[in-house]
Amino acid sequence: MNRPPNFCPQCGTPLQDAPKFGAVRRVCPNCDYVHFNDPKVAVVTFITQENRVLLVKRGVEPEEGQWALPAGYVDYGEDPRETAIRETYEETGLHIEIQSLFDVMFYRGHNAVIVIIYQANAIGGQLQAGDDAAEAKWFAPTELPELAFESSRAVIRKWLTQF
Amino acid sequence: MNRPPNFCPQCGTPLQDAPKFGAVRRVCPNCDYVHFNDPKVAVVTFITQENRVLLVKRGVEPEEGQWALPAGYVDYGEDPRETAIRETYEETGLHIEIQSLFDVMFYRGHNAVIVIIYQANAIGGQLQAGDDAAEAKWFAPTELPELAFESSRAVIRKWLTQF
Repeated sequence: MNRPPNFCPQCGTPLQDAPKFGAVRRVCPNCDYVHFNDPKVAVVTFITQENRVLLVKRGVEPEEGQWALPAGYVDYGEDPRETAIRETYEETGLHIEIQSLFDVMFYRGHNAVIVIIYQANAIGGQLQAGDDAAEAKWFAPTELPELAFESSRAVIRKWLTQF
Repeated sequence: MNRPPNFCPQCGTPLQDAPKFGAVRRVCPNCDYVHFNDPKVAVVTFITQENRVLLVKRGVEPEEGQWALPAGYVDYGEDPRETAIRETYEETGLHIEIQSLFDVMFYRGHNAVIVIIYQANAIGGQLQAGDDAAEAKWFAPTELPELAFESSRAVIRKWLTQF
């Protein structure tokens, strides 16, 4: 859901369409506000240890009760690597260290979202589900549950090719 | 510049702070609007041919008159690979094919921005500057101009290590 704005979020004046920075954009005739339709960005962390992968059972919608890789939305001003570290800690209790950029994917669903996937190592903490996660657990390839989200499924498919 | 909103962009009602989806967010007491502070995302394309790299001279601020890799902002709902193809065509007249994900970087400047960098090949079109670009030109390693933007400089530094 990403509706064009009707009113200026700064001063409340009704917005108008006007050519601005190479496109027709919603602009405020009263103040300097120009609306840019910024994308949603999520990060996903892919963490393995002794041939097991860390998954969380989602405690909230969407996909409540389904398992997926730890993930979360990136806020403005936040380094996506920091988002990955923060969300993984909140959801699993584990401290991680980013190892490498795994991939960038893009999905058009209920919300269109850019998904940045990092490979990471657990370096401390105590496994303990929290925040949006109802459970957090390590899974061997033979024990994998069904997964929510195509980004999680794509990462796990690639992981499984090495066994 | 990314100021918190004062008024609901949907209905114009003054927004309030309220706990929502795990954080205090700006929410509308009149309609269902919740403000998410989404990040800015730019794509950069790194295109080489016969040991030369494609650069554009910026025709607009910021960094007007400086050279950089072709780049642009990603709009909501746009696949960043499509943004790379579109912006490169608009700025250089060349059709490209994405080869690989080169890196994801993050910068905090006037605007905090996530930068997704793709390596690409030119597959057609006619070199012709347009849109935000005043010039578009292939440069050999020995002919490189000074570059705007740390993302462009970082890519070119890595490129130069192979010569």
